[in-house]
Amino acid sequence: MTTTTAPTTPGTTLREGAFGPAVSLICRECGTTRELGPHYACHECFGPLEIGYEFGSVTREQIEAGPANIWRYKALLPVPDDIESSPNLEPGFTRLLEARNLATELGITKLWVKDDSTNPTNSFKDRVVACALSAAREFGSKVFACPSTGNLANAVAAAGARAGIRTVVFIPSNLETPKQVNSAVFTENLVAVDGNYDDVNKLASEIAGEEDGWAFVNVNVRPFYAEGSKTLGYEIAEQLGWRLPDQIVIPVASGSQLTKVHKAFQELIALGLVEDKPYKVFGAQAEGCNPVATAFAEGHDAIRPVKPDTIAKSLAIGNPADGIYVLDIARQTGGAVEQVSDDEIRDAIVLLARTEGIFTETAGGTTLAVLKKLVATGQLDPERETVFINTGHGLKTLDAVSGSVGPAATIAPTYDAFVAANLA
Amino acid sequence: MTTTTAPTTPGTTLREGAFGPAVSLICRECGTTRELGPHYACHECFGPLEIGYEFGSVTREQIEAGPANIWRYKALLPVPDDIESSPNLEPGFTRLLEARNLATELGITKLWVKDDSTNPTNSFKDRVVACALSAAREFGSKVFACPSTGNLANAVAAAGARAGIRTVVFIPSNLETPKQVNSAVFTENLVAVDGNYDDVNKLASEIAGEEDGWAFVNVNVRPFYAEGSKTLGYEIAEQLGWRLPDQIVIPVASGSQLTKVHKAFQELIALGLVEDKPYKVFGAQAEGCNPVATAFAEGHDAIRPVKPDTIAKSLAIGNPADGIYVLDIARQTGGAVEQVSDDEIRDAIVLLARTEGIFTETAGGTTLAVLKKLVATGQLDPERETVFINTGHGLKTLDAVSGSVGPAATIAPTYDAFVAANLA
Ligand SMILES: Cc1ncc(COP(=O)(O)O)c(C=O)c1O
Ligand SMILES: Cc1ncc(COP(=O)(O)O)c(C=O)c1O
Ligand SMILES: [Zn+2]
Ligand SMILES: [Zn+2]
Repeated sequence: MTTTTAPTTPGTTLREGAFGPAVSLICRECGTTRELGPHYACHECFGPLEIGYEFGSVTREQIEAGPANIWRYKALLPVPDDIESSPNLEPGFTRLLEARNLATELGITKLWVKDDSTNPTNSFKDRVVACALSAAREFGSKVFACPSTGNLANAVAAAGARAGIRTVVFIPSNLETPKQVNSAVFTENLVAVDGNYDDVNKLASEIAGEEDGWAFVNVNVRPFYAEGSKTLGYEIAEQLGWRLPDQIVIPVASGSQLTKVHKAFQELIALGLVEDKPYKVFGAQAEGCNPVATAFAEGHDAIRPVKPDTIAKSLAIGNPADGIYVLDIARQTGGAVEQVSDDEIRDAIVLLARTEGIFTETAGGTTLAVLKKLVATGQLDPERETVFINTGHGLKTLDAVSGSVGPAATIAPTYDAFVAANLA
Repeated sequence: MTTTTAPTTPGTTLREGAFGPAVSLICRECGTTRELGPHYACHECFGPLEIGYEFGSVTREQIEAGPANIWRYKALLPVPDDIESSPNLEPGFTRLLEARNLATELGITKLWVKDDSTNPTNSFKDRVVACALSAAREFGSKVFACPSTGNLANAVAAAGARAGIRTVVFIPSNLETPKQVNSAVFTENLVAVDGNYDDVNKLASEIAGEEDGWAFVNVNVRPFYAEGSKTLGYEIAEQLGWRLPDQIVIPVASGSQLTKVHKAFQELIALGLVEDKPYKVFGAQAEGCNPVATAFAEGHDAIRPVKPDTIAKSLAIGNPADGIYVLDIARQTGGAVEQVSDDEIRDAIVLLARTEGIFTETAGGTTLAVLKKLVATGQLDPERETVFINTGHGLKTLDAVSGSVGPAATIAPTYDAFVAANLA
């Protein structure tokens, strides 16, 4: 991977306060710090960089007085204080619903679903993209881009349209039609790549290394982008009444979201916004793309890449950038990383719909199916309060269930036909 | 239409406070009032009944302290004070976005889009269904049902699943696949009817007349259901900083939503929550289902039913129950009811996506295309502050645009292939 060029367009200088409370970039591998800027890889060891902060005083009341979107947490994000005034999709502050019917079905005492399917482009990706967009704006980037398993492409194309920045989004050419249309409607530059996500990602890194001013949200702007997932953790804690759950189940593709929810919980504890307490973090993968779950099961520290083959295409990252950090967190907290089959994923989609009225995509099906398996195998304590995250929308992966659900009857428009159909 | 039976299951008595500030049912035609209960047609003249209220003191502060969903307005709705504690989808408080790019495109000074596509089942119908569900619960109904052009079926099936009440939803058998799957995933009882919406609606009235305990949300629970659309009006006013816009454009199928947004504005004025001021209300229809627009254009008071034939299937009601009230409101306020072609609808869907990052369905395409036409024809003042309502989601009507947008290129996963594609 070349790292010669950057999202910054030549001649751009950073303005004061461009990144709010963020103060540095820190290497996750060797701890080397460097100044904030358009960097994403460590100069010492090529490890991934992460944002370091010096938070001012942040109170619950301040946050609660903010808008009903992720910017209520702007004091905890690498964004400027005037972030609300630049055009963006205003994602977040989605519903946290107590799932009583589902809890009964699974034999759990207290269960919540954090439902990110109602975000602007119907996945949690709107959160990360909003933070990446802010960084791209501050860097003066001229193109807003991504390699994507689908949802990220939707979010980048939509956010870029509203912000008035040129977008180019790259997807595997075999992606579900709804996710293709849901990007193409926003951008003229949807690029289908003959290959899997890992091929698309490699191509994006190459382009990022060659072209000036291209902000690839999850490549060369990744440190800023990834912080957006922290808002899922903040919201869950705030919506529980400023406390942490005992157990949380999160889907894993690159592993970024899971690591950032954990980071968010740690920050809330450090800031005194919630009480310190132990909690377990569980990761969810599909059997057809299980590199982290396999490493967990086998007790390995390194992750062996796989070639994905699963209906959970949004989770189909065979070589996950943050996989090793997911392993660490699952082990440290006493959680686990589990995997489920495509059939279990399909069943879980219908189960969530029938019990709680939420239509999730295959990623959410994976997460719920893993939750079910964790209960069945005794890895998750059914007596302790549990949250699982629904990260995407079923309308984007219709084919997963369109074969198994449909009209109960097709009738003539008469009362007699209705009676004969025996539905009363 | 028979009116012998009702949503009430025999033996049910209403509890104190079941309908909050609502005190009576009032006939829209003759003004006769009757006691609150499971009624929907006037005993004197068979006119439609509407809810009458005696509001207590309601302040902005009270509302602002409420939850980020429609229940923040519970003091203005026919629902009990403990409504938040019964399982429901918690719809509403969706984004009001200033649409600067779109405004520039249309030559308008100040334009907002109220985006209801991010509701729990991705249309404004979650609002009305939440109010109908409350009524059905208070009536002890045993079945929660509807005839639907699609979105309502999604909302009823989902809300009923979460509430744990049996659902039966009726749709025209030619409905778009996404809307079918998005109902069938929630309920075992999706019934496809060979006929158009008006046939389905007639069948529902017949069933409602024959079966005890069936709550058809938009038939025999309609007075309670319809009030849910008021929350769109309340939210727009609150999100504008407690004031009314000068002009508002709203899609028209049965006409219920438009009449209730107007009612909401009037209530806010009467309660002193916003300043009194004139505003114009505009209705939007498709040329392929234009009964109200035609009556408006021809200066008629009555509405001649049509046989719908348009891609805007969610608006395809040929015999609109509240059409005459829409005419009244458009005329009284100095607005209009306009119509646009299917091609204009398709173009408007892409326009909204490319300018503001919102993917709307054909209903929203209709509304925006009408707004464009109103500006072009001088019926709407481009200098005055305007709001239009996006009521549904593009993922449900993919076919409307899937022919006209798509990947710009399909390439091999190499930098050379990228360069050759000429996107940089
Ligand atoms: C719906 C959905 N859920 C979860 C994920 C996992 O995200 P991460 O790469 O942060 O692990 C993705 C990634 O694309 C996704 O689209
Ligand atoms: C997306 C959408 N918008 C608008 C409407 C119009 O609603 P009304 O019947 O209240 O006029 C409908 C009705 O089904 C709808 O589905
Ligand atoms: Zn390093
Ligand atoms: Zn009457």
